[in-house]
Amino acid sequence: MALKTLTSTPILFLLLLLLLLLGCAAASTSQVRPRPCKRMVLYFHDILYNGHNSHNATSAIVGSPAWGNRVTLAGQNHFGDVVVFDDPITLDNNLHSPAVGRAQGFYLYDKKEVFTAWVGFSFVFNSTQHKGSINFVGADPLMNKTRDISVLGGTGDFFMTRGVATLMTDAFEGEVYFRLRVDIKLYECW
Amino acid sequence: MALKTLTSTPILFLLLLLLLLLGCAAASTSQVRPRPCKRMVLYFHDILYNGHNSHNATSAIVGSPAWGNRVTLAGQNHFGDVVVFDDPITLDNNLHSPAVGRAQGFYLYDKKEVFTAWVGFSFVFNSTQHKGSINFVGADPLMNKTRDISVLGGTGDFFMTRGVATLMTDAFEGEVYFRLRVDIKLYECW
Amino acid sequence: MALKTLTSTPILFLLLLLLLLLGCAAASTSQVRPRPCKRMVLYFHDILYNGHNSHNATSAIVGSPAWGNRVTLAGQNHFGDVVVFDDPITLDNNLHSPAVGRAQGFYLYDKKEVFTAWVGFSFVFNSTQHKGSINFVGADPLMNKTRDISVLGGTGDFFMTRGVATLMTDAFEGEVYFRLRVDIKLYECW
Repeated sequence: MALKTLTSTPILFLLLLLLLLLGCAAASTSQVRPRPCKRMVLYFHDILYNGHNSHNATSAIVGSPAWGNRVTLAGQNHFGDVVVFDDPITLDNNLHSPAVGRAQGFYLYDKKEVFTAWVGFSFVFNSTQHKGSINFVGADPLMNKTRDISVLGGTGDFFMTRGVATLMTDAFEGEVYFRLRVDIKLYECW
Repeated sequence: MALKTLTSTPILFLLLLLLLLLGCAAASTSQVRPRPCKRMVLYFHDILYNGHNSHNATSAIVGSPAWGNRVTLAGQNHFGDVVVFDDPITLDNNLHSPAVGRAQGFYLYDKKEVFTAWVGFSFVFNSTQHKGSINFVGADPLMNKTRDISVLGGTGDFFMTRGVATLMTDAFEGEVYFRLRVDIKLYECW
Repeated sequence: MALKTLTSTPILFLLLLLLLLLGCAAASTSQVRPRPCKRMVLYFHDILYNGHNSHNATSAIVGSPAWGNRVTLAGQNHFGDVVVFDDPITLDNNLHSPAVGRAQGFYLYDKKEVFTAWVGFSFVFNSTQHKGSINFVGADPLMNKTRDISVLGGTGDFFMTRGVATLMTDAFEGEVYFRLRVDIKLYECW
């Protein structure tokens, strides 16, 4: 009886070890996306300064190509315009909902043939639910219905996090207002 | 005697394996911060070009909103000003200490109501102690005593590193000079 | 015979476990670089707008210091010039080869004494071979033969990837054209 246990136990270990190793291998090669360790859907709202709306503008053109200026977005699909922003983040798609934080950073338009942007910004939270920040960069081909950017890191509640955020233009009004839906999927949580 | 050893050894393995797995689980869910695998405290010094100090300025305004210019920081808490810098890094808080590297990149002011910045830069080391670079981005609400940004990656001695850096304004003189204390805590070391 | 197997098997396990642990330890402290899980060599081509080449320019100056303008790169080694780009990526060093994607983002010159840049950009792929994007930031001391920047993350085929990219100036013509060779080494593949 004792001997029987002895013979079977090592095999069990081997199997466990194999499973462990196979699990690691699977995680690194599988094409199936892992499940996020945290997921949040948020909205942010950008009101671009156009020379007449300084009272409620949340962003402004700060760089432009030789053929542009800082009050009107440039021709050629705004190629070269650089915009700095401080936009309210809300839990739903209502601009007037209480802000849970601010989206702060910049975007720049970087293609002459079609609207495309590159973004570098942070979500800076200051609510009872979340403290800390999440940092993003990535290409934002904004004519696509959805586009993915990288979550590079975070601080506070989001210490060292990594992931992907899916952007969606939820609404826009001319060249002054747009609202982005951000589906944040974190795959590394500390 | 031999049999006794045999019966106890597999149990030891099971315990070891369990400990290993529990350790992994704890590391990923615990709220207690892990200990950094590397930590460094450094200072860097920014002297902003103001039209009269080209001999020793280490940074310059390169973008500004429509209401600003490139020699004086803009009104509304410098909202929209973009500054490029090449600042000396020192081991202590003395501007004239030998530089161990350069902090290179940009910051931009991004809030109208209060001084707040967004930063993207690298520490480029060139000393006997360190070769390589560390890359940072993040929100820098500079009126806070301390604020955390992300360490995204590195090269050379800092190959693939990740972590968090705590910024502290160590000194400033008007709008021309400031000195930042940077407490770099790396949690991923390769 | 059976007993002999029993006595040797646990020792085998111990050795396996030890090897596993030693392997982990080695990976985290060894100075020997691990092997990339993926490697790609690509080229991209930058044609800077100079006031006369709007038909084929792929980049433009969008920010400059007080002593600069947006048609000619500034004195003092272009310190403070910010350039937005949308450059074709090719598999070989021929500008006219079919593009497999676009390099999109910005670079800025950030040293007065020598040509040095800081870059933030994405490779946006759109070929039969690759879909998705890779995000980069880092210091680019472009007078060095090779220089390393960070691969921070990615999307699509490059979901969550991290690594290092080695840049090399493969060719340049005056201040209008340059071609970069990018050797992308990914060390985290999902």
